[in-house]
Amino acid sequence: MGVLTLLTDFGDRDAYVGVMKGVILGIAPQTTIVDLTHGIPSQNVAAGRFQLQTAYSYFPPGTVHVAIVDPGVGSARRPIALATQSAWFVGPDNGLLTGIQDPIQMAVHLDRPQYWRTAQPSTTFHGRDIFASVAAHLCTGVAITDLGRAIDPQTLIHLTLPLNDSADGQSMTGCIQSIDHFGNLISNLKFENTQVHAGEIQFHNVRLPLQSTYADAAIGNLVAIVGSHGFIEISINCGNAQQQLGCQIGDRITLYLS
Amino acid sequence: MGVLTLLTDFGDRDAYVGVMKGVILGIAPQTTIVDLTHGIPSQNVAAGRFQLQTAYSYFPPGTVHVAIVDPGVGSARRPIALATQSAWFVGPDNGLLTGIQDPIQMAVHLDRPQYWRTAQPSTTFHGRDIFASVAAHLCTGVAITDLGRAIDPQTLIHLTLPLNDSADGQSMTGCIQSIDHFGNLISNLKFENTQVHAGEIQFHNVRLPLQSTYADAAIGNLVAIVGSHGFIEISINCGNAQQQLGCQIGDRITLYLS
Amino acid sequence: MGVLTLLTDFGDRDAYVGVMKGVILGIAPQTTIVDLTHGIPSQNVAAGRFQLQTAYSYFPPGTVHVAIVDPGVGSARRPIALATQSAWFVGPDNGLLTGIQDPIQMAVHLDRPQYWRTAQPSTTFHGRDIFASVAAHLCTGVAITDLGRAIDPQTLIHLTLPLNDSADGQSMTGCIQSIDHFGNLISNLKFENTQVHAGEIQFHNVRLPLQSTYADAAIGNLVAIVGSHGFIEISINCGNAQQQLGCQIGDRITLYLS
Repeated sequence: MGVLTLLTDFGDRDAYVGVMKGVILGIAPQTTIVDLTHGIPSQNVAAGRFQLQTAYSYFPPGTVHVAIVDPGVGSARRPIALATQSAWFVGPDNGLLTGIQDPIQMAVHLDRPQYWRTAQPSTTFHGRDIFASVAAHLCTGVAITDLGRAIDPQTLIHLTLPLNDSADGQSMTGCIQSIDHFGNLISNLKFENTQVHAGEIQFHNVRLPLQSTYADAAIGNLVAIVGSHGFIEISINCGNAQQQLGCQIGDRITLYLS
Repeated sequence: MGVLTLLTDFGDRDAYVGVMKGVILGIAPQTTIVDLTHGIPSQNVAAGRFQLQTAYSYFPPGTVHVAIVDPGVGSARRPIALATQSAWFVGPDNGLLTGIQDPIQMAVHLDRPQYWRTAQPSTTFHGRDIFASVAAHLCTGVAITDLGRAIDPQTLIHLTLPLNDSADGQSMTGCIQSIDHFGNLISNLKFENTQVHAGEIQFHNVRLPLQSTYADAAIGNLVAIVGSHGFIEISINCGNAQQQLGCQIGDRITLYLS
Repeated sequence: MGVLTLLTDFGDRDAYVGVMKGVILGIAPQTTIVDLTHGIPSQNVAAGRFQLQTAYSYFPPGTVHVAIVDPGVGSARRPIALATQSAWFVGPDNGLLTGIQDPIQMAVHLDRPQYWRTAQPSTTFHGRDIFASVAAHLCTGVAITDLGRAIDPQTLIHLTLPLNDSADGQSMTGCIQSIDHFGNLISNLKFENTQVHAGEIQFHNVRLPLQSTYADAAIGNLVAIVGSHGFIEISINCGNAQQQLGCQIGDRITLYLS
């Protein structure tokens, strides 16, 4: 019995995700299916990439991760599967899977219809017709090399993200790369990399000391901390920083080391 | 171990769906429960019927489908269960289950309280007190004929949908029957039925050739395709057709064959 | 194989809940995980308490319930686990768990890092680093007394809710304590307690007889009933009472007995 995760931009209004689970359970009935999220903004590959990147490592070895944010479905973009030492990843070759931090040991182009739900897949729902089916076969023990022709990982599509880290020894500048359900602003400044445990954050017209947790600020006040992803984030204790500051993904943020 | 699906209009704010799962797992602990969707618009039986109709056939044989969009809960409307050759369906007799394409081999009125959670069910939550419990008993192997008195499938309530297909050999006229999370407009014109693979769509003041997939249009442009349900749909490549066109369920759409 | 439920205010946009499931399945792979709801309004401990209180008793004996609405995460508030005769509860000591109706047989302060995901938990995501891990160990059979130091249940934090029941033999006054997805207004007047089965409700400028189910009112009309939780609720048949009446949690409601 294995674990299979699903991440999509399909939302919760339709039965699209449920249908994928039906396909999976028809092939691999013992699989434990976990929803990572289906609330990725429509067609936002970068947002999907961030969620997958920060979630996959918490799953048991052998987990199959299916990620589908796929504006190019039905076009020439390749359906792919990747293997790392401890997990598999299935999805479109559009940058969604390239946040994975572990070395890619194998990449294949999913071009073998015998592992699809149908040899004549729809042009708009490869989640159902290709990705769910192929991922379920991985769960049953089919080798990734059986699922398609090997491809060079160097040829995978990468995203150009608006990430502009720079470090001069005194400061690092980056940007907001994700905003979560609570309105927390998550930057691309990863604290482990900086090897310091103190500093100040400059964001919009605000300067904040780096603190430990939300409750270090009074209720309703801004606070800068190292978030659970390891990235510096700006929050309001018991409030919504996005709504109060009116900021967006891509906004600049600077860390002054001390 | 069987599969049981849930489709409701209960949303995700409350624990109503979770409570149903608790009841099910207390009776049939080995069941794999799958959410089809809980985002059906409140009391919209037609929308629930469409989602169930287009989803159920992707599940393994023997799946039990529970569907609850039930504005008449607690009134005289009958709780029912249906059997087809490969699946069971449990829900209210209000048209929700009548989108099933397969012949109904058995229909029963769920009138045996020994299979309910309690002999004195609440008047407002038959999902918890009747439907979840009865469906779980089906999963454990109880025969449908034990769950209630057999009824004539001809007496089931059917929906009168605003579907006005017409065909004159040159064209077919129908309407938008569903709008999905992406704003795609899904008509009731089923392409397999028309036996053609080319044509033009007339919708509002727009005329569009039938194409293969979203990416056949430039980003931001309208495109008409045969969607993954088999129905003709109108979309915007990387956009939201509903928001841009301001259209609604029931709007007319015509296919001109070529 | 046991059942574990999750209730949070984490929403569905991020992979936070999925990550907790990854941690759980890494420790207790046979666990059946059920989402109670992740739609609790952000940081609203009282709303989370109500949902847990009205849901937990429908689960099989031995279920582990994890509830996280935790504005004080990372501060001095205690992470705790509670045992009743038939279930376990894991979450922060902030009142969230104090809606449980059954006697608490054991309470512990979760202060043993060997049962956490990491001995150095993040300051902002104890759901992942402490609660998910500890709950999974409970599922594998670890005794609650192993998870931390026993504490006196009398020292647990309780919520001061805006509940002002009063009874003079002629009437009971309370307030709206929850508003559900359908806009139904759920009061804190529990009908079993009143031992009557007839009465009239006074709410805003409306007076309504107590009826049996939604369909006792004409479509679009107000109706007062005993809801599925056992609490008196005000609804609109096939409509949304919250939107139509413009009311809020805390609004006064009076039951006149007859």
